[in-house]
Amino acid sequence: MLSKNKQKFILSLNRKKIREQNELFVAEGHKLVSDLLSSKCLTSIIIGTSQWLDANKALIPGNCEVIESKHDEIKKVSALKSPPDVIAVFKQQKVELDIKQLNDQLCIFLDEVQDPGNLGTIVRLADWFGIKTIICSSNCADIYNPKTIQSTMGAISRVNVHYSDSSDFLSSYSQLGLPVYGTFLDGDNLYNKELSSKGLIIMGNEGKGISKEVEQFINQRLYIPPFPANEPTSESLNVSVATAITCAEFRRQNN
Amino acid sequence: MLSKNKQKFILSLNRKKIREQNELFVAEGHKLVSDLLSSKCLTSIIIGTSQWLDANKALIPGNCEVIESKHDEIKKVSALKSPPDVIAVFKQQKVELDIKQLNDQLCIFLDEVQDPGNLGTIVRLADWFGIKTIICSSNCADIYNPKTIQSTMGAISRVNVHYSDSSDFLSSYSQLGLPVYGTFLDGDNLYNKELSSKGLIIMGNEGKGISKEVEQFINQRLYIPPFPANEPTSESLNVSVATAITCAEFRRQNN
Repeated sequence: MLSKNKQKFILSLNRKKIREQNELFVAEGHKLVSDLLSSKCLTSIIIGTSQWLDANKALIPGNCEVIESKHDEIKKVSALKSPPDVIAVFKQQKVELDIKQLNDQLCIFLDEVQDPGNLGTIVRLADWFGIKTIICSSNCADIYNPKTIQSTMGAISRVNVHYSDSSDFLSSYSQLGLPVYGTFLDGDNLYNKELSSKGLIIMGNEGKGISKEVEQFINQRLYIPPFPANEPTSESLNVSVATAITCAEFRRQNN
Repeated sequence: MLSKNKQKFILSLNRKKIREQNELFVAEGHKLVSDLLSSKCLTSIIIGTSQWLDANKALIPGNCEVIESKHDEIKKVSALKSPPDVIAVFKQQKVELDIKQLNDQLCIFLDEVQDPGNLGTIVRLADWFGIKTIICSSNCADIYNPKTIQSTMGAISRVNVHYSDSSDFLSSYSQLGLPVYGTFLDGDNLYNKELSSKGLIIMGNEGKGISKEVEQFINQRLYIPPFPANEPTSESLNVSVATAITCAEFRRQNN
């Protein structure tokens, strides 16, 4: 039975400030919760139907609070259209960013990506393409926003997401001597470039693209060519779509 | 000045039933509205600030209702966080689908894509990749949903979107003798296939993928390979991301 107080607490975690104070976040639904339970994430509370709890005994760690609930109780704290069989609260992961360890990886830097859904979708596709580290500028959407967590579809358990001041991070990263890529409308055709298996791919804000502050660190300007060339078309692509096409081409070339 | 009645009417267009009865849809913001005003779309109402109306005189057709409004009035009918300078109501476009005309094109068929944002993002990327026709199964999201329209970022003025019963459309399409592609977890590596410049790319529902009913029409099964192969990763990609990667590869090969 889910108490009124507990309901209030779960719902309060919709607010970034409360999430940060408690260092917690909420995940909903079997797929996402079971992925997180099987990961290194620490679990704080599991609210599940008796059927779900019975069927997933092996996944439930010993030291967390388990609350058996009916669907109509779960509905009260759920953000989904149809209430799921399980909602869980996890501890936020604080992994120190060691820039030196990025020297043999392909990583993504996000410059003010503001839509929580875009951020979650990018984490999910980074996972697909074996990109283990995403660095977000401080003004990006919050990775622990419920919409972001749901859009990752569990990929958040396999990809490390860090927040950093853009200039601080990029100045340090530059010292690795690796290519720093960004997509621009006046860049070089992505398909005519030899793309490295290591380096940084920078993607910009939904409306404004890559900021001047960040642009100065980019030494490889890329462009996703429209088809056919030189016909009227959309001015740009959605940022998660552009990230996907770019990452896919990096991996195609280096497979 | 925006009357109470007009406000009510604009807001009522959030509902699919009312949109269909009136054959109208709403678009917000300078970029989207000006793209639609410059297209073949017929305009019914323009609600703009005096500054916007002054600056965009040349775009405003003679036979539509023009309402000069203040930002705080526009706010009352806007779905956006910060109210835009202009909101407009357009006539829904009803273009007859002539299947024979698809025989020299690359087209997309969407099988129950339900998220309005995904649908809009797919229209936008189709425009980028020169795909002029999208056919949606009857149970897809509504192209005229305000979220869909906003996500197209104006591409809706350049891409024709049709709705059809899946079997009806696909049976007729099959008679063209063109390749019908679909993405599956057991398909052939996208990058090892010779992809045609004409044919149909089928993308499936966010949770369930491509339905059995639709699958029987597919004669080319594709797969977007994760990187590296055979390591634990996400089960799938977001549908708009998967569509983007697939379309990009078709166009890369045929450029």
